[in-house]
Amino acid sequence: MRIGVLTAGGDCPGLNAVIRSVVHRAVAGHGDEVIGFEDGFKGLLDGHYRPLDLNAVSGILSRGGTILGSARLERNRLREAAENWHELSERTGIDALIPIGGEGTLTASRMLSDVGMPVVGVPKTIDNDINGTDRTFGFDTAVGVATEAIDRLKTTAESHQRVMVVEVMGRHAGWIALESGMAGGAHGICLPERPFEVDDLVKMVEERFARGKKFAVVCIAEGARPAEGSMPYEKGAIDQFGHERFTGIGNRLASELEKRLGKEARPVILGHVQRGGTPTAYDRVLATRFGWHAVEAVHRGDFGKMTALTGTEITTVPLAVGVEELKTVPEKRMYEAESVF
Amino acid sequence: MRIGVLTAGGDCPGLNAVIRSVVHRAVAGHGDEVIGFEDGFKGLLDGHYRPLDLNAVSGILSRGGTILGSARLERNRLREAAENWHELSERTGIDALIPIGGEGTLTASRMLSDVGMPVVGVPKTIDNDINGTDRTFGFDTAVGVATEAIDRLKTTAESHQRVMVVEVMGRHAGWIALESGMAGGAHGICLPERPFEVDDLVKMVEERFARGKKFAVVCIAEGARPAEGSMPYEKGAIDQFGHERFTGIGNRLASELEKRLGKEARPVILGHVQRGGTPTAYDRVLATRFGWHAVEAVHRGDFGKMTALTGTEITTVPLAVGVEELKTVPEKRMYEAESVF
Amino acid sequence: MRIGVLTAGGDCPGLNAVIRSVVHRAVAGHGDEVIGFEDGFKGLLDGHYRPLDLNAVSGILSRGGTILGSARLERNRLREAAENWHELSERTGIDALIPIGGEGTLTASRMLSDVGMPVVGVPKTIDNDINGTDRTFGFDTAVGVATEAIDRLKTTAESHQRVMVVEVMGRHAGWIALESGMAGGAHGICLPERPFEVDDLVKMVEERFARGKKFAVVCIAEGARPAEGSMPYEKGAIDQFGHERFTGIGNRLASELEKRLGKEARPVILGHVQRGGTPTAYDRVLATRFGWHAVEAVHRGDFGKMTALTGTEITTVPLAVGVEELKTVPEKRMYEAESVF
Amino acid sequence: MRIGVLTAGGDCPGLNAVIRSVVHRAVAGHGDEVIGFEDGFKGLLDGHYRPLDLNAVSGILSRGGTILGSARLERNRLREAAENWHELSERTGIDALIPIGGEGTLTASRMLSDVGMPVVGVPKTIDNDINGTDRTFGFDTAVGVATEAIDRLKTTAESHQRVMVVEVMGRHAGWIALESGMAGGAHGICLPERPFEVDDLVKMVEERFARGKKFAVVCIAEGARPAEGSMPYEKGAIDQFGHERFTGIGNRLASELEKRLGKEARPVILGHVQRGGTPTAYDRVLATRFGWHAVEAVHRGDFGKMTALTGTEITTVPLAVGVEELKTVPEKRMYEAESVF
Repeated sequence: MRIGVLTAGGDCPGLNAVIRSVVHRAVAGHGDEVIGFEDGFKGLLDGHYRPLDLNAVSGILSRGGTILGSARLERNRLREAAENWHELSERTGIDALIPIGGEGTLTASRMLSDVGMPVVGVPKTIDNDINGTDRTFGFDTAVGVATEAIDRLKTTAESHQRVMVVEVMGRHAGWIALESGMAGGAHGICLPERPFEVDDLVKMVEERFARGKKFAVVCIAEGARPAEGSMPYEKGAIDQFGHERFTGIGNRLASELEKRLGKEARPVILGHVQRGGTPTAYDRVLATRFGWHAVEAVHRGDFGKMTALTGTEITTVPLAVGVEELKTVPEKRMYEAESVF
Repeated sequence: MRIGVLTAGGDCPGLNAVIRSVVHRAVAGHGDEVIGFEDGFKGLLDGHYRPLDLNAVSGILSRGGTILGSARLERNRLREAAENWHELSERTGIDALIPIGGEGTLTASRMLSDVGMPVVGVPKTIDNDINGTDRTFGFDTAVGVATEAIDRLKTTAESHQRVMVVEVMGRHAGWIALESGMAGGAHGICLPERPFEVDDLVKMVEERFARGKKFAVVCIAEGARPAEGSMPYEKGAIDQFGHERFTGIGNRLASELEKRLGKEARPVILGHVQRGGTPTAYDRVLATRFGWHAVEAVHRGDFGKMTALTGTEITTVPLAVGVEELKTVPEKRMYEAESVF
Repeated sequence: MRIGVLTAGGDCPGLNAVIRSVVHRAVAGHGDEVIGFEDGFKGLLDGHYRPLDLNAVSGILSRGGTILGSARLERNRLREAAENWHELSERTGIDALIPIGGEGTLTASRMLSDVGMPVVGVPKTIDNDINGTDRTFGFDTAVGVATEAIDRLKTTAESHQRVMVVEVMGRHAGWIALESGMAGGAHGICLPERPFEVDDLVKMVEERFARGKKFAVVCIAEGARPAEGSMPYEKGAIDQFGHERFTGIGNRLASELEKRLGKEARPVILGHVQRGGTPTAYDRVLATRFGWHAVEAVHRGDFGKMTALTGTEITTVPLAVGVEELKTVPEKRMYEAESVF
Repeated sequence: MRIGVLTAGGDCPGLNAVIRSVVHRAVAGHGDEVIGFEDGFKGLLDGHYRPLDLNAVSGILSRGGTILGSARLERNRLREAAENWHELSERTGIDALIPIGGEGTLTASRMLSDVGMPVVGVPKTIDNDINGTDRTFGFDTAVGVATEAIDRLKTTAESHQRVMVVEVMGRHAGWIALESGMAGGAHGICLPERPFEVDDLVKMVEERFARGKKFAVVCIAEGARPAEGSMPYEKGAIDQFGHERFTGIGNRLASELEKRLGKEARPVILGHVQRGGTPTAYDRVLATRFGWHAVEAVHRGDFGKMTALTGTEITTVPLAVGVEELKTVPEKRMYEAESVF
């Protein structure tokens, strides 16, 4: 067989581990050929690819990023791919495609699968918000980076009797904020899933100071928003790439807390350090297993699926399940974490 | 309510996180009192304990070890505990006990439960070999430490064209070797679950050298053993504490490989660094959830159980399930890892 | 003897290591008594202090922050201290004071010394900009944190063909930017010591893209400023605490580069994670040696001095030397780093 | 100019950083050509080398090991090199050689320099025992790895009321033991420079237990030896490579302490993890500066020298100075560390 592999969407620790594992299993295990498309679906459309043998993936297991590059695909080009998938497959000689990516990539994969392309997706997101799988690789690394930051910030907060507001990634789902907040022992956690009342945060900090704990750490997801009327909140300026820039919720909340508390509050916006660099052991194992099982799925013709973690097993679930809704933090996980506001 | 908590058995990153979480949930959530017994079951028997309030567990989330201490319990004293549990409970005023520990501790807990003591266990082992739960806290930290070591050893192995043999923990189950071997990209993995053929390892190394990869890393569990007749193997001397000392399988295998290959092979015995120190974010979250749910189980009278991870949920399973058999690495996980010998 | 110790100014990894070392050397080595003033000079003025024995400093070597707390002192209260130092010494019974702090603290120490108080200062700053010592503790940790961040950001930059702008600490001296930029292999480094030309950065990035390296990382000190006319630059709004908030140079530069290059550029503002948390081994050793030698200086009556690293030796230099000028990055270090703009 | 570079001797974090820096400075700074000899002096003798341009050293700054490989050289082949250096230079076209290595390599470099070869050495050792330079790269990384291990072991020691004996590298000089022992807060430190009395260690542990600190950590250099008559000590078996195997001082001391104290004592032999893997920021900066200055020395004809750190400056000192004696831990540093036995 000849299998194509590509990575698309945002950077995520573990991408290279999946690529390596696909090559190991396909080439060494089945005697397949593997080719890697460059810069995501673009490489498929433009015929930019290179053969991947064992040497090509040597030493990449622990490296962040993706040796294949990644790029966003415009919608019309995706349609082009769907319409010409047969020709594209023929031209590149592939019998199956393994796209590694997030929600957008899996949606594209589903489209290609729906028109007949033999596709097995591998879900990828540091946000852990893809449906149908217990976890995604990259998430553990992101939580680890955020937790280490909170650990560091706590000592400063305590020494200076300050409030620290740490903004972590998560536009629509608050998994990183939830787990790094729990792991770091944050006193307040704010998630996109539940609008927060600033008053409650103020009260929590004041109660801490009152019983002699003269500092607090709040961990807030970038997508968290205050409850209606809870604090002044206008949408920031939108840049040419569609992002609301430099006026994130972390900065705003720190400013608001400082004003209301009359105590120093400092924001820290972790940003892209959460999504790059060497993956944790957990993510390397999960990514490696995903790659291995994606090749197995290809060989048993289990197309239109994506790999998934279900308990301790790697399974496959329909791509349709993966993209049908975002997996957000359920109420009971918030309840259990106690410090979610 | 008044809840007793104790930690028993070997050190394990996350013990303090469980203790803290039990106190937070019980005291802040339910208005309970919590007391901590010192040095495991000994503290229960000898009446050595101290009250644990929120301040007592402040700042311990990220700390390794256990603030309560831990100690092995002789079998006859355990019988003593079982016979007098009612009096012991009365003397200390506890309505329920949360013992945090490994197989031995859970077996003891089951004994106490069988005679009527209200017990909810929390499983603990860096080895990940307790039945009935997907994972135990401490395991992720151990795998992380071992993986970082393999990462480091690989560069030396490569620069010096050497074979490195890394011995990791795991007397009866090879989970740490399996996952750190996968995460570190070890070329050979040896587990207690499957006797290894030295010839196969020799062949693997020679094939690597033949295709220009002039180094290899073997990750071996301390409990792994060569197949009958595969290499000279006599049991080492046993010290006063019952351990086979200084002649572990890592040293023996490195020596044997060096002899057969005629190439330098170096053993590294990771030892106790795998079981101490600050827990990973993953382990802190799991430990915190276990503690929280143990208190909930106490409050709903769900005794004779232990907390467990089942997929993404924390559940409780009978203590009997937890101790009925060791959870070892199944065949399919070995197959999937490819480099298991 | 009875020695007072206090920590003042911003958080800095290694403060606790100094405190511990002072206590170890004074109490165990000389049979002294040590008291710790709370929240810097405030504790001295208000008579808030506590005895520090070996148990009081147990386990703090690796902990960030300061067990004594820290606070800014208003200028008029400092005068109060200088005028009443004799009475203050008498009231607290101290024979000598060891203040641990940055430029402000050392200036205050010098004032106290000038009026006759027996003072031995210990210099502290993550910025490494105190004169008279080769290095200060805290700096190595800050550089380590920043370097790890750059390592992580590089893989994302490369995978996404982006420019990453990392803003690190350093208002007046660029040591952190210089060394973390070198250690992380940043392609551009901007320091407060030398106004940068945006055009040069643009050219550097374009040349990289031209030769196939389709990403770049710029490491910029928070105090770096563009050369006159090099890019639009107005001072940001000043908050109630006198800080220019939320409009730092990192954000501005990323925005400007994106506009000029027509490529995605992302800012990451590391902020307070650089100044908290567990110190590196290097900083622990340096801090421990500083503490030890401060006590020795006290015992030989070597007052009006601060400890300093000179090559491999710990020496003392006059406080006047430490505060006479800021130690900034000299031209030749910039030249040597090559990527300084 | 055409400059040759090679790495020889044991693995050391930072080797790749030197190679990269030599290439950057020579190629980009001076328009030189650089060639890299493979496997140390062997590559020079056998004419195995490859050109090193900017792309060849891309991404290696943070990687452990050496892209050029390393190997021991037999003494007679070294003589061969000395006798034929002129021909070797001509054959490979080099105008100068930059050997990066430890004592053996620098001695060889001196021999080559003495017969007229234009050589600038770069000193390398994780042991920090080369004369004439304040520090060598690799040392900081080794100390960091050892310190993290001690941090981890301490929590286990404390939880289990045990003595932990950590054996770190250092056959002839105890720098790693000294600094990691200080940074980790070891209660006993044993160095090759001073035979230790087991009785003193026993007394220290007993005193700790007596005042309620029921654990201890001893950090011992592999080359440390007990004082005459202090404990039974016979030399272990010597293997085919000349090493005394599997019977190191760490194991012996733990065994002896256990016997004398009647308490559990556990050895941990850190081994090769100390010498591989990604270098710390400190080591990357030092290695980069060494590489840069080695090229400058070549260009100003400053041959027969090695680069050195002198305070904050990089200087050059005669190779003769670097190899005239081992830089061991002086008495005053032991005194200052307090816990050296």
